[in-house]
Amino acid sequence: MTSEDSSPARPGRRQLLRAGSLGAGALGVGAASIGLDRTLSGRGASGASASASAAAPPLHGGETVPFHGEHQAGIETPAPAAATFVGLDLREEVDREGVLRMLRLLTDDAARLTRGEPPLADTEPEMATQPAALTVTVGFGRGLMERAERAAPSWLDPLPPFGIDELQDEFTGGDLMLQVAAEDPVTVSHALRMLLKDARAFTRVRWVQPGFRRSPGIVAPGSTMRNLFGQLDGSANPATGTPHFSHVVWIEEGPFAGGTSMVIRRIRMDMDGWDEVDRTAREQSTGTRLDDGAPLSGGTETSAADFEQVSANGFPVIGEFSHMRRARGVDDGEHQEIFRRPYNYDLAPPPGGGALSESGQIFVSFQADLLGQFLPIQQRLDTLDLLNRWTTPIGSAVFAIPPGCAEGEHIGETVLR
Amino acid sequence: MTSEDSSPARPGRRQLLRAGSLGAGALGVGAASIGLDRTLSGRGASGASASASAAAPPLHGGETVPFHGEHQAGIETPAPAAATFVGLDLREEVDREGVLRMLRLLTDDAARLTRGEPPLADTEPEMATQPAALTVTVGFGRGLMERAERAAPSWLDPLPPFGIDELQDEFTGGDLMLQVAAEDPVTVSHALRMLLKDARAFTRVRWVQPGFRRSPGIVAPGSTMRNLFGQLDGSANPATGTPHFSHVVWIEEGPFAGGTSMVIRRIRMDMDGWDEVDRTAREQSTGTRLDDGAPLSGGTETSAADFEQVSANGFPVIGEFSHMRRARGVDDGEHQEIFRRPYNYDLAPPPGGGALSESGQIFVSFQADLLGQFLPIQQRLDTLDLLNRWTTPIGSAVFAIPPGCAEGEHIGETVLR
Repeated sequence: MTSEDSSPARPGRRQLLRAGSLGAGALGVGAASIGLDRTLSGRGASGASASASAAAPPLHGGETVPFHGEHQAGIETPAPAAATFVGLDLREEVDREGVLRMLRLLTDDAARLTRGEPPLADTEPEMATQPAALTVTVGFGRGLMERAERAAPSWLDPLPPFGIDELQDEFTGGDLMLQVAAEDPVTVSHALRMLLKDARAFTRVRWVQPGFRRSPGIVAPGSTMRNLFGQLDGSANPATGTPHFSHVVWIEEGPFAGGTSMVIRRIRMDMDGWDEVDRTAREQSTGTRLDDGAPLSGGTETSAADFEQVSANGFPVIGEFSHMRRARGVDDGEHQEIFRRPYNYDLAPPPGGGALSESGQIFVSFQADLLGQFLPIQQRLDTLDLLNRWTTPIGSAVFAIPPGCAEGEHIGETVLR
Repeated sequence: MTSEDSSPARPGRRQLLRAGSLGAGALGVGAASIGLDRTLSGRGASGASASASAAAPPLHGGETVPFHGEHQAGIETPAPAAATFVGLDLREEVDREGVLRMLRLLTDDAARLTRGEPPLADTEPEMATQPAALTVTVGFGRGLMERAERAAPSWLDPLPPFGIDELQDEFTGGDLMLQVAAEDPVTVSHALRMLLKDARAFTRVRWVQPGFRRSPGIVAPGSTMRNLFGQLDGSANPATGTPHFSHVVWIEEGPFAGGTSMVIRRIRMDMDGWDEVDRTAREQSTGTRLDDGAPLSGGTETSAADFEQVSANGFPVIGEFSHMRRARGVDDGEHQEIFRRPYNYDLAPPPGGGALSESGQIFVSFQADLLGQFLPIQQRLDTLDLLNRWTTPIGSAVFAIPPGCAEGEHIGETVLR
């Protein structure tokens, strides 16, 4: 039995690919190289342990994602296996200087942790040595902007109430959001704790939402995730690394240029109710095939849907109340896009209720224009969407994601200047 | 973007190694081969998708661990990244026939799921296609043995109360235990739901405890895990695949021969209290070095501790109240061993309390002789163990793990005959 720290770090092809895919951000590439070098030198790549035999698969605990860059990491970068989202409220006494001090502290922590280095005050430095593609993404609520005495974006407010909502305070709102994500949940746990310890003098924890996706190496990178209903979820996402993605996600002008808006909603999924629905009805509810995610009009997961197609008896093949048709605004002559990066949750059921679990999705979307992209989609789905029968939003928050920062800067520096 | 099911399954070296390491159980090896063949044929190994390029790491979602064998899987087999433990109570009306019917159902489900096949009643068959080294381990409480009208092992009772315990009903006891573990939490989630759906007519959920370890590929296989305190935890474990392991873990005689006893305790870890402890005091509390897990008397993680060694001022280097010394019974002239296979938990803090998280360990140990091995260790630790200052058991249960079963049999068949 060998200690986990004695394992050789071999960033390998995957890390290079990951770093390479960030080519659009020049700062990012530089930082990636630094991360790579450090990882290789920091943990004795030459040391041959039992695990480094030819038979063992390459380890990727040393993989790093650049923290610095034009955009914050954790949005366009591949969604890793584990993420915890935290909403924080600023303490009453924290003023503009306090906000800036906190952001400097969190930025320094995040920059170190994402490189696989312990932050300055880390009491468990051994826990920091496997960054596992760690990203830390920071979002601002209106409360933070006001405390920092700077104008919040006009759209930075809670979403309007929707008829389907059953929001709970414990999953809603917040002045500051941290998304801490990595290929490894132990890494997430330690990184988050370090950040929260340093944030503690300035904030109170409002909500914490741990989520999961497939572990690394289970399915091909870039695969669309199945949610806990078994649906391929995210097929319509813009492809990362494309001009189209940038157009959909990144704000182009103003202080938040290079940033984006983030919606995080906790969607409870009624697993028991869903069980009672047969396969045909399930496919009708989304307008897509369960097995491969293709539109019911035919083709493959990535095929364009034919919303005009009708069945032998004259009804649309992709039904009028289907999630796909409603989300795309087919019958409203509209079409908006957002980028979804959701995580699953599956927890112990509330005691005594007879449920088998408390399950659902941490819905996360990023879009350049909250009011112009996200809101119309959500309004259409609120009005009419077959899936609403089995899904209930129980938490909701909106954050402004500032752009990335360069070395020596702190997150939000340009927007709070 | 491609659907996750289109990814090629390449069991590769790791699976072969895993299957090979089970050589002691002849049944196991046969089943492994079946699993492998099925995986290869079931998902089109010839289909070259984008992910199958030379640059991509091999995928291991198709990896299987044999369900059938001399022993149940999930004990000596490598502890994978995700596990959920469930305690169930039998419904009042369930009699011996009901218990047997339920076990036949659960066995059939588990055998299929661990091969990567959907169970008969699976309404999301696509969710079953990535077994990711899934194991399902079943344990019996006294309640189940009585309902099945068979004598329970004499030791099959709750542990005696310990002074350190603050047990909560919601994490304690149970007639039936399921440990569902895999390298992927989505796989665990679906497998568990399938099992609970089939168990629902017979049982009520008493508790559910999801836990995590490192994701696959982060650290070398076989590495000792760090717990959330940053301690290497499990260094003293007997090595799997050795006669010594068998001696420590497997019951040798009687109906449960080939089985074992399982203790599962939910140990809350006071992360805030631990933060206040400096590194020297932390190392004194365990008697081991934080960085590499070596005994304070010197050497490496696997070195024998020198409990006689004294410092310049005459005190034992491995202090009398240290966890290591107490656990090993050095000063009582005793020495017992158990096999630990713990998981971490790290959840949202209880509202309003000011804590940053609700964190701890799902302590799981297996030992042939509960009263002769586990109990003396726990009694010594209860009396005196520096670590008790920062850890609190809040849940506890004991289960009898029946031996494995062959194809065509159900779990527990021999013990309930």
